Amino acid sequence: MSTPTIEWVGDADGHLRLIDQTKLPVKTAVLNCDTVDDVWWAIKKLSVRGAPAIGIAAAYGVVLAASDSHESIKTACDHLATSRPTAVNLFWALDRMRRVAEDASDADLAECLLTEARAIHAEDAEQCAAIGRHGADLLERTLSKASGILTHCNTGALATGGDGTALAVLFELHRRGFAPHVYADETRPLLQGSRLTMWELNDRGVEATLICDSMAAHVMREGRVAAAIVGADRIAANGDAANKIGTYSVALLCKAHDLPFYVAAPSTTFDLSLASGDEIPIEERAAEEVTQPGGVTFAPDGVNVYNPAFDVTPADLISGIVTERGVIAPVDKGSVGRLITN
Amino acid sequence: MSTPTIEWVGDADGHLRLIDQTKLPVKTAVLNCDTVDDVWWAIKKLSVRGAPAIGIAAAYGVVLAASDSHESIKTACDHLATSRPTAVNLFWALDRMRRVAEDASDADLAECLLTEARAIHAEDAEQCAAIGRHGADLLERTLSKASGILTHCNTGALATGGDGTALAVLFELHRRGFAPHVYADETRPLLQGSRLTMWELNDRGVEATLICDSMAAHVMREGRVAAAIVGADRIAANGDAANKIGTYSVALLCKAHDLPFYVAAPSTTFDLSLASGDEIPIEERAAEEVTQPGGVTFAPDGVNVYNPAFDVTPADLISGIVTERGVIAPVDKGSVGRLITN
Repeated sequence: MSTPTIEWVGDADGHLRLIDQTKLPVKTAVLNCDTVDDVWWAIKKLSVRGAPAIGIAAAYGVVLAASDSHESIKTACDHLATSRPTAVNLFWALDRMRRVAEDASDADLAECLLTEARAIHAEDAEQCAAIGRHGADLLERTLSKASGILTHCNTGALATGGDGTALAVLFELHRRGFAPHVYADETRPLLQGSRLTMWELNDRGVEATLICDSMAAHVMREGRVAAAIVGADRIAANGDAANKIGTYSVALLCKAHDLPFYVAAPSTTFDLSLASGDEIPIEERAAEEVTQPGGVTFAPDGVNVYNPAFDVTPADLISGIVTERGVIAPVDKGSVGRLITN
Repeated sequence: MSTPTIEWVGDADGHLRLIDQTKLPVKTAVLNCDTVDDVWWAIKKLSVRGAPAIGIAAAYGVVLAASDSHESIKTACDHLATSRPTAVNLFWALDRMRRVAEDASDADLAECLLTEARAIHAEDAEQCAAIGRHGADLLERTLSKASGILTHCNTGALATGGDGTALAVLFELHRRGFAPHVYADETRPLLQGSRLTMWELNDRGVEATLICDSMAAHVMREGRVAAAIVGADRIAANGDAANKIGTYSVALLCKAHDLPFYVAAPSTTFDLSLASGDEIPIEERAAEEVTQPGGVTFAPDGVNVYNPAFDVTPADLISGIVTERGVIAPVDKGSVGRLITN
């Protein structure tokens, strides 16, 4: 990818530049964000998406408020926190930025915030690389060469500050010559699988086949895939994982076909303040995402639509969670607690 | 519905008029078919779809060849049989037309064929009504009032010569004041659920909510639905049922949530010559149906796509099959054989 997903341009009075992911794969357009509100909209409209990438973009968003005052930093953090409710990385990154602001003098404020945002970005890239290695080790041990592996939504370089989470694992397997064949769910309603994941896989030369979400069960029954691996937007203390709508379905279908189902996410995706996934807030989005994909009308005017953007996969359906610190398996409160301390 | 799904216009030298379902719900356009090849294309391109409707359209298509000779009837039947491979109603209807042609004199040929096509059409309408009654009896017995019921694809007046199969059951429940709330899977790739089912449900005043296919599991986990009911394109002697891609997934998700999963289909959908669903041919369709819904590009150029149009649900996942002759439950070779004899 020649254009970075997220890039800070200039020094502390610079601006944030994002790939506008709503335009992919038809064109690679960049979106320059000069204000906190620009970043809020970029997150809200999914120009930038993916739990780690949302956190990084929000952190840089706070820097855009730094030319004003400590008070404006607080306002910026509060505002950015309202952009999307489910991915916990957003709140985690904003908390880090708030703490840095509290400790910084007025003179140092902008510089300190930019340094912290860059650190969040760089740490995520390192975590992606470590997730890739741990996940590839795991799949190399458990699967045969050239296995089909199913994934859902987009969890690659477009979703993170590095190579991705679940896709980082697949990229690493590819680098190692394991030759995975990826089956990518298109991921309705916003088609991150067809628009973004297929684009990234093609770009890296990973063998891949696009399917509709409803085809996953059939593909499993035909023996085309040996495992599924997905990302996460928030993981509770007991290991229940919220991720893009449809993930829970994939996990149930894996269980029915006796296939392992893995989650890959950095430690920043865990929210140990929540006992279980029942407490994770699930964003509902506009009906038009379902009724008018790409602006084309596919449903009668004014029909009722239910459009939850995420679902929760219970820990007992997850064979393992791949983090930058290693693999959590089996997944339960004890094993999560041993590896993760927020 | 003011425009019939399928209508023969005129007498034996008339023509076939169809609703062009590819244009719904944006507009109700009619498609006039004057030749056998027009009907072949209408079936191939899904201007007319739904297993019973395909059979009826093909039967009328044979009439369009009747002005020529007995030989042209055979050619017409052979040609129409190549339009789509999975729905057995197509082959069943063509067999009936072939037999009538064999017994008719040259002078009577067109008249006899039109009479037979009209009979196939009328019988299907009666079967739909009977399926509606048997299915409503079953669901009234097993579900509480105002239950949510999930369906997949379109199985209504647009898919049959009458009120439908699975949708006929829901329409009948609505007429009886049972007040079902239907959750309609949008049914990628061709969106028959959002385009056609939501249109029919709205038209009849049945409460309904549109969801993406990937949301069905989440909707079940939230307790929004108490059962699922779908149609079928071909049912083997052991009760394995081929239906629109994604149906097998719905059946597995029902099992995981301990919900009944019903199939509704006329006896013409059974193919007792096949021992199990493994023998049912599954149509694969063009990649563009997945990559370019409504002509908008949602995937990088030239990506691999797997686009099976149907899947097979094993009999052991089916709680009951509602036919015009009554309900088959439990579903196995013995119970199918007792009710169905092709």
